[in-house]
Parts: sequence; C-alpha cells; structure tokens
Amino acid sequence: MTGTYPSRSTSRCPSDLLSLQELVDGIAVDIAAVMGRGKVADYIPALADVDADQFGMAIHTVDGQFYGTGSSGVGFSIQSISKVLSLTLAIEHHGDDLWNRVSVEPSGDPFNSLVQLEHECGVPRNPLINAGAILVADALLDAHDDPIDALLSLIEQLTGRRPSIDEEVVSSEKATGFRNEAMANLMKSFGNLKHSVADVLDVYFRQCSIVLNCEELAQVFAYLANAGRQPGSEVVVVSPLRARRINALMLTCGTYDRAGEFAFKVGLPAKSGVGGGIAATVPGKLALCAWSPALSASGNSVAATEALRLFAERSLCSVF
Amino acid sequence: MTGTYPSRSTSRCPSDLLSLQELVDGIAVDIAAVMGRGKVADYIPALADVDADQFGMAIHTVDGQFYGTGSSGVGFSIQSISKVLSLTLAIEHHGDDLWNRVSVEPSGDPFNSLVQLEHECGVPRNPLINAGAILVADALLDAHDDPIDALLSLIEQLTGRRPSIDEEVVSSEKATGFRNEAMANLMKSFGNLKHSVADVLDVYFRQCSIVLNCEELAQVFAYLANAGRQPGSEVVVVSPLRARRINALMLTCGTYDRAGEFAFKVGLPAKSGVGGGIAATVPGKLALCAWSPALSASGNSVAATEALRLFAERSLCSVF
Amino acid sequence: MTGTYPSRSTSRCPSDLLSLQELVDGIAVDIAAVMGRGKVADYIPALADVDADQFGMAIHTVDGQFYGTGSSGVGFSIQSISKVLSLTLAIEHHGDDLWNRVSVEPSGDPFNSLVQLEHECGVPRNPLINAGAILVADALLDAHDDPIDALLSLIEQLTGRRPSIDEEVVSSEKATGFRNEAMANLMKSFGNLKHSVADVLDVYFRQCSIVLNCEELAQVFAYLANAGRQPGSEVVVVSPLRARRINALMLTCGTYDRAGEFAFKVGLPAKSGVGGGIAATVPGKLALCAWSPALSASGNSVAATEALRLFAERSLCSVF
Amino acid sequence: MTGTYPSRSTSRCPSDLLSLQELVDGIAVDIAAVMGRGKVADYIPALADVDADQFGMAIHTVDGQFYGTGSSGVGFSIQSISKVLSLTLAIEHHGDDLWNRVSVEPSGDPFNSLVQLEHECGVPRNPLINAGAILVADALLDAHDDPIDALLSLIEQLTGRRPSIDEEVVSSEKATGFRNEAMANLMKSFGNLKHSVADVLDVYFRQCSIVLNCEELAQVFAYLANAGRQPGSEVVVVSPLRARRINALMLTCGTYDRAGEFAFKVGLPAKSGVGGGIAATVPGKLALCAWSPALSASGNSVAATEALRLFAERSLCSVF
Repeated sequence: MTGTYPSRSTSRCPSDLLSLQELVDGIAVDIAAVMGRGKVADYIPALADVDADQFGMAIHTVDGQFYGTGSSGVGFSIQSISKVLSLTLAIEHHGDDLWNRVSVEPSGDPFNSLVQLEHECGVPRNPLINAGAILVADALLDAHDDPIDALLSLIEQLTGRRPSIDEEVVSSEKATGFRNEAMANLMKSFGNLKHSVADVLDVYFRQCSIVLNCEELAQVFAYLANAGRQPGSEVVVVSPLRARRINALMLTCGTYDRAGEFAFKVGLPAKSGVGGGIAATVPGKLALCAWSPALSASGNSVAATEALRLFAERSLCSVF
Repeated sequence: MTGTYPSRSTSRCPSDLLSLQELVDGIAVDIAAVMGRGKVADYIPALADVDADQFGMAIHTVDGQFYGTGSSGVGFSIQSISKVLSLTLAIEHHGDDLWNRVSVEPSGDPFNSLVQLEHECGVPRNPLINAGAILVADALLDAHDDPIDALLSLIEQLTGRRPSIDEEVVSSEKATGFRNEAMANLMKSFGNLKHSVADVLDVYFRQCSIVLNCEELAQVFAYLANAGRQPGSEVVVVSPLRARRINALMLTCGTYDRAGEFAFKVGLPAKSGVGGGIAATVPGKLALCAWSPALSASGNSVAATEALRLFAERSLCSVF
Repeated sequence: MTGTYPSRSTSRCPSDLLSLQELVDGIAVDIAAVMGRGKVADYIPALADVDADQFGMAIHTVDGQFYGTGSSGVGFSIQSISKVLSLTLAIEHHGDDLWNRVSVEPSGDPFNSLVQLEHECGVPRNPLINAGAILVADALLDAHDDPIDALLSLIEQLTGRRPSIDEEVVSSEKATGFRNEAMANLMKSFGNLKHSVADVLDVYFRQCSIVLNCEELAQVFAYLANAGRQPGSEVVVVSPLRARRINALMLTCGTYDRAGEFAFKVGLPAKSGVGGGIAATVPGKLALCAWSPALSASGNSVAATEALRLFAERSLCSVF
Repeated sequence: MTGTYPSRSTSRCPSDLLSLQELVDGIAVDIAAVMGRGKVADYIPALADVDADQFGMAIHTVDGQFYGTGSSGVGFSIQSISKVLSLTLAIEHHGDDLWNRVSVEPSGDPFNSLVQLEHECGVPRNPLINAGAILVADALLDAHDDPIDALLSLIEQLTGRRPSIDEEVVSSEKATGFRNEAMANLMKSFGNLKHSVADVLDVYFRQCSIVLNCEELAQVFAYLANAGRQPGSEVVVVSPLRARRINALMLTCGTYDRAGEFAFKVGLPAKSGVGGGIAATVPGKLALCAWSPALSASGNSVAATEALRLFAERSLCSVF
C-alpha cells in the first residue's frame, strides 16, 4: 500500500475548446429561450419597475482576464448577493465566534421563513438566508461604526469604484419589510441580536440596496475563487480556509430553498438575489455573474440560473 | 473584453508535500484524540455489539494507486453508504424520471423524519435520506428482478470480490425498523411506492446489511471521482454528468442533517452510514473511506468525520 | 317514534316551545338545502359506494324517550365514532395510567397527521384522532382477550342488539390503510405500542367497521349524557367524572381539526366518523346522532354537522 | 362577602350541599398544598416583582350574589384575560366579518408561536392567543377612536368602577415585547393588519396592563354566564348566540396549549393571563375568578387552575 500522489492536473474545468468570450456570447444568444419566464420581484415596489427583458453576464478569472456579454455593464440592486460580502467582513472581525450565533446548515425552507428560527431559539440556519444576514448585520455593528461604509470600501478596494446605494430601494424595503421586521424581532426576543432592531435593519436594507453590474460583481467575487486573495494585487480579503468555507456555504445555502437543485444542475458555489443577479465561483479558476430580473417562485433569476447551468455544461467547469 | 481560458492546472489538491501514505498514517495517529467520543448505533441490536475502538482509512486514486491505514481491511455494515450505489443503479434505469418521485434538496431534518414526507405528499427530499432510499429501492424493483443481486454484482465488478450480507443485521433491521416501516407506508399512502412495503423494505434492509471494508469502499467510490468510469478498466458506471450530480447530492445531502457543517468543515462530497463508515470523493483525483463505529448525535461517525477533516486540511483537497 | 320532551328543563336547553319530534322532523326538511354538498369518503373503496343522498337523525333522552327522522334506522359504518366506545373500555381498565401514553389536547392538525406524533415522541395528542385510537386499541389488547367482542358486548348491553361488522369494509381498510400502518409503526418505533402492529390494527380496523344506525348510536351515547349510567337500567358504564371527561374530549377533539369551529357553531360534545355519522350529547339531557354520507374536506359529514347546528340553534341546547 | 346559593339549580351544578361561601373558603385553605409551585412570569420585568405567595378567588352569580375569599380584592395585571373583553367589543362592531381574519380553532402550540401564523398566511388560529388578540386590537382601531377608552368604559359599566392601567407594565411590555412585534409584523406582511404595527401594539400592550381584582373580574365576566346580559341591569353586552360562542372559544382556546387538559380536568370555559388570573364561567349560573401569580410552564397560574378544578369537583359545576 504505497504510491505517489497524483500529479496536480485535474479535468474539472477543461473548456479550452472554445474561448470564454465565445462561450458567454453563445449563452447570451441561447438564453432567449427562457426569457419571458418568471416575474420581476414585486414585493419591493422599487424593484417591480425594472424591465424584465434584460440579460447580462460577466467572468473574471483569477489571472485577471475578464469577459462580458449582453447588459453586463448595467447596474442592478444586488440584494441578497450582499450577504456574502457582509459575511466576509463579519468573519474577519468575529472569527469562529460568529458560528455560535448562526448555523451553517441549509434551511430547507423559503428564504424568509420564521418557522425554523422559532424552533431553533432564534439561531438562523445559515448566514445566507434573510434571518442569518440580519444576524450578520448585527454582528457588523460590533465591528464597524458604519458597516455600510465598510462594505462600500471593500467593494471599492476590489473594483476600483465606490458603488452607489439606491435610496428609493432602501425606502421601499423599509416601508414593506414587515417579514424582516418580524424575523429581527423574533431573534431579539431570543436575545440573539445585540443592537436595536431599527439599527440592524437599517444596515440590512442598505446593504441590499447597493447597485453593481455583472462585471463588477464578477470582479468582486474573484477573491473567493482565488483562495481569499484579490487577483492581481494578491491582497488578502479572507484566509484560504475561510474562502473555502464561504464557497461551501454558497453551494449548500446560496440559492434559497433550491440550493440542492442548483448544486445538482449547475454544480458551482453561488449566491442569488431578488434583484435578479447570481454571483458564482469556480474555485481556483474564476468568478462569474449572470443577471436577468425575472425570478422563479423560489426567488432565483430564471435566466441567470439557466445561464450558469449552460456555462457549467459547456465549460465542464464544476466543483464536482 | 477578450482573453484566453486559464491553463488547466488547479491548486485544489496540492498535497505533494507529503505522500498520501504518510498522510493517512499521520491521521491514524492523530485520530486517537477523538476516539472514545460518540457511541455505537444501538437502535439496531446487531450493530450495538461492534467494538467502538476501531479506526480504518483507505484511499484509491483515479490512476489506480491505493493507500490504507489502521483497520482499513476490516469489514463493517455499510448501511446508508449503500444509498449511493442503489441510486447509481436506479438512475441508469429510470433516468431523469426518477426525479419526479424524489427531490434533490437537503432536508434540514433528521434522517428518519416523517414531517417533510407528509408535508410534501410522500415525495422524499432526496435519495440519500432513508425515505428517499426506500423510494429508490422501490424503483430498483422495476429495473431488476433481484435488486440485491444487481448491487452485489456492481460491487463485484468494481472490487473483484462479491461481498457478503450480514444476515444477523438484516434480521435485526427487520425486527426493529418500525420507523422505516412508517415511512414506507406513508409513501405508499400517497401512491409513491409501486411495490409492496414488505418487498421494498426487504431490498432496503438487505442493501444496508452489505459488509465491506474501507479499502473496498474507496475502490467502489472511485468511479465517482473519475467522471463515472471505473479507474483502470475505464468501464462506464454512469455518465460524467450523472457522476457529477451524484457527487453534488453527496455534498448537499450525504451526511444527514449535518451536511452543511460537513461541507463547511471538510468540503468534500461524502456519504455516511450508521455502521460508522464515511465514503468521500475528491472529483478528478481520488475516492476515500474512513471508518470508526462510534457516532455523534447526528448519526455520523465522530472519528471518520474528523479523519476526513484532517485529510482535507492537510492535503488541501477540497472542492472549494 | 314519538315521545315527550323530558321535564327536567334547565336554562341551557329550554326548547319546550316545540316537541323534539317536531324539531327533528323540521330539521329533516330544512337539511335539503345542504344535501349534495361534500363528497362520500373515497379513500376506503367500500365506503365510496354508499348513496350520498341519505339523511337520518335520532335522539335518545336520559329519561328514555326517543325520536327519529329520515333514515334514522339505516345502518352505516360508524368508523371514528367507535373511538369513544373503545376509549370508554380502555379507561375502565387502565384508569389514569392511560394518560401517560396519550394526551388530551386538540391536535390542530388533520386526523391522520404524523407530524405531531413525531415531534411528541410517539404520544398521540388525544384518543379521538387516529393515532390516539390506535394507541387505545393497543391498550384494549391488555384488557381483553378479544377487544372487539368486548366492544360488541358493550353495544349489545346498551341497545339490546349485537351489531354486525362489515367485513368488506374491514378488508378495504386493511388493503388501503397505509397511513394508519405508518402511524402505528411510528408509535411502535417510540416504544408506545406494546402489541404487534398487525394485531393492533386488526382491532382498530374492525372497530371502525361496526355497523349501527342513528337510533342505536343515540341510545349507545346516552350514558355520556347521564353521568355514565345507562338510562333506564342505571347500570354504570363509567364513573360520572369519566363521563364528564369523555364529553370534554369529544368537545375539544371529537370533530378532527374543526373541533373549534364545531364548538363555536354547535356547542355540543360530539364525535364524527368518515362514514358520515356524528354522535353528540347534551349532558344531563339527551344523546343524539345525525348521519349523511357526504363529507366536507375536514372529514365531517356536511349535512350531519348542519343538522346538529340547527338542533342546537332551535332547541337552545348548548353546553355554553 | 356573603350571599346565598342561587335557587336555579340544574343537574349540572347541584352543589346545594354546601354554600358557595363555604366552598370558596375551603378551597382557599386547601390550595395551600400547591402554593410554592410554578413561578411568576419573568419575561415582563414589571410582573416579575409580584409576590408569588398570594391567592384570591371570587364568584358572581347571575342573580347578583357574590362570594370572595383570600386576596379577592387585590388588583393584578389582567394580561390575556383582556382578550375576551376586546373580542366582545370587536364582535359587536365587525360581526361575523371578523372571522375572515381570525379562525376559531385551538392552536395546539404555545401562545406566542409564529409557526402556524406563517403556515396559515397571517391568519391567527383564534382570538385568544397573542396573534389573534393583536389582530382583534387592529380591528378595534376601526371601531373606536380610542379602543382602550372603550374597554375601560365597558369594564366601568359592568363593575361601576373605571379601572387603572399599570403604566410600568405598559413600558415593560413595550421594552421587551419583541415576540409580539414579530407576530404583528408577520401579520402585517400578509396584509392582515390594517393599522400600523406601533398603533396596534400600543392598544394591545395597554389592554394587557389593565388592573382588576378577582371580585371585579367575576363581576365583569358574569354577562357571559347570563346569555350576554349584565346581571341585574339586564343590559345587553352581546347577543345570546355570541355569548355562547365566546364561552366556546374560552373552553377550546382560553388556556393556551393546555386548553384540552383544562376542559378535561376542570370542564369550564375560562381565560387565563400571565398575571396569574383565570376568569371562568358556568353558563346560566355564575362567573368566577381565581388568582395566584405563580405560573406553570404553559403560562397558566398553578394555584388558580387547581382552585377552579376544586371548585368544579366540589360544586359539580361543569358544562359536561
């Protein structure tokens, strides 16, 4: 029982057959087949006005190449995609203590369910569902005087441009976010929020209202494909172990209660938002983002999901 | 926005620093720290008699190298690890039709819960929890006159040895498997089982009672690390796409209601059994199996989980 | 079928204004308005064949008067109404020890749900839902060599006629009772059934298949309106306290997950069955039974519920 | 505090054997056996300071007799007992339309659970659990410019004295009522609250903070024992049918998730509050109230529950 370790090549992402630019351009053409399906999020009035008939996609590789297609330069409300970034900041401050207040299991329930939160004494299932992200927002208030400034600074560091916040979306979220109010109060009732519900939700609603485009999001998420370091500068955003763990959370919990199906059909760590964006990583290789506003019943963009599925199928990129 | 696709090397499994043999031998030493924790499954009398103080581990690479340590040659009841093999056979016969009868989402509940099964009209959350595997056993009865013979033949093809079935465990499962009887009857009440409960459970209890050792299990699971082909012979067990999907299911659903934590801490597709074994894959590289009988409350072997965590940490092998 | 209204009027049941015979005859006329609503139980094939267009009603007062209307002499499958009688026998044997194995709370869930049973470790919410009655059947097997004989003897003692069992219904229940099999096995898995699932369900399915008519059921239930004694003979069936408690259970748990609405709209202790019968009591005054096969979604007879509501409204009989 | 037992005896409440004064005095002596069990509500700081070692009880008959014992004249925070009074006012204004927004089924869950509320789209199970009473408070804001003034006026009409509100309890509820905030926001998210969460909770917290003593509460609840009319004045508070229905709701839903057990052991319509009071009715006969601050885990006063059980046992008063 001896032997040598296999040479380090793998066949997990062998798509040299066509260039990535050809690949994304082809997807932009073929995605037309699913455009028109799903519907734009209407529970936040300011989101309901977005034109559903848009699609964009961008890739940023760990060695600094980037590719875009369609409306890859059009900004949109990143919504729940922000949860990965706030988690990144919170982990850096709190370390593993954070996991005493939020679990790392898929929920098996819709993103805004209170059922598990009650059964499990105010401890959210994971940091990528609403309750978990609200908890993370509370944790960020310990770490930063102005958590939103910290988030914007992180994004600026990674993209070179400080993003804007859509104040109309913020107002809209505040005026209609009763479910999030309910979750925050439920966690507060269990003693799992330290700051006031109003302060915590202010952070949460504002982080969701950050506006970015596909190109920027692919660039932002590239640190998760590069062992925690910003490609190019090699500045450390998080440790390699934490980058792996965030990827793991994205895979098991990043696409609401369709995370299993997403892993099954696409096979990449990803985080979706009800603004229609989905950011994903191919660890060791690249980050990518697809966007189209119309959502399936589960809250994931129909066309962005299909675009990522086509990408994985055609590039053979998969963590599996 | 142009560029070339990155060269195909990755850094996802760069552990040339020490040989895999040294790696597993080191784990066998260090695992002593957690031996004694957990307890042997006692709900099946025949399992309760196993000596808890055993540990074994084996690796089988896609290019045919193998490594073993500790009691890697000692046979044990594979229990739920068999679910991956029965799923493999059922997918080959039924194709995607199988997914009309069983979902692909993590359950978020204990492995033997009936709650979701009732709420979701007799459709199990995934094929790797008990209810799902019972459904797969029903599906196998459509595909094979003798599903157990088919399973044993598959294993024989992959290992060169036809395994035995522990008849005492079969009897013990039948005499005490009321929870599984309940699940099968509940699915039957929803019309989701075609065959009689007795016939289906006979298959299920017998597949769980197959006896294999770590070396054999590592060898068996190697097709899932090799795009569906048996290493060496390159015989196709399943298509590459299905191999990826089975790996995805193992990652999101393979370790009961701790799948999220396992992905977070270990980061590899894996399937555990209450016999104390856990089989895992590093897609493109190798399959491995660790075994130790004492279980945590979630039903996963304490020492085998830790062994896989140490393996991932030290080899830097991870899908993330 | 005539008689006079009992002289022991109280403020709770002051319907001297019209005779009880006129009252039930009027209900039989007015019930036509709801005939045709609902549908006959179809999950048991032998029940699905019953003509839906039948209605009967009968009253038996504690001083021995009786009144009937419509098809009050037509026999039907008593189904869950039998649960009150098996409970009566089990309480007499086990006393308060019975309440260690079954609770006395309304379930808030459908009659055949397994969810609470799992959450509450195999202890059914109350003895009048399926799981609870299966538990009671198990308890009866401790008390009687032949629990069915004991039940039939009790009925014979109260009515003067030994009822028959519809063997076709028994076979039908056994062939399709997977949900009940599931519940029994789940309780068995928690150690809350002492006898084999097969033996317990044989008792349960047979008790449900007893055939009685409205007149007999009103006569049978009269002991619960008479402080536990058979009117006339004054033979003690249960103690006064236990009679009160059984009435309480009927009120809070006797009409599946519509017990609250039934108490709200009708205001009498009652037990329904999917054969279309509902037996009820006006404690201190009378017992009554209405029957019509078509059921609402909750499993209660539409016309029998309405008949009892009209009875309570017009007689002003109510426990409230 | 003397009087004679009402002459309108019925078979359901035949306790002429001893006078009601002797009865309550005897209970006050015997209740010592359970004093010291349970603990004072501590989730509202202002309630936690109450001396646990107090007991009072009072009876008010429909013909105007009253009886008291122990600390029957000591005021306490009526808490959830207020839900019966707000429901009475809301029914008068909204009639049966109210039942489109709140159901009439027992919940089977703790009084402050959000689980059913989410599963059932923001429609509370019944008006006597927290969510239901918050809904009723919202409904009262349609009916009255100042719902609290309306409640206080109703009580003043029934007792001759306008009660006070404990402002310290109001502040305490507001500062710690995160669970109620969560429920109100959840209902708001489903569109089942018309007014702002802040306005609704202000009504709810203030109604809970009304201070009354046992004598007053027995007097207040007497209309529910008198077919909806105030004894003496015979002023109609609610119609006879609604009085019966409110009694039905108290019986099936009035003592949190122990309503089944309370019906089983006591057998009277009743409403408890975490201030330690329980008001009950013997329809047609009398209303009564017992109070002692220490609560069981279910939120019902241990000694007040036992006092009512002894009352029912010794007076033979029961609706069953």
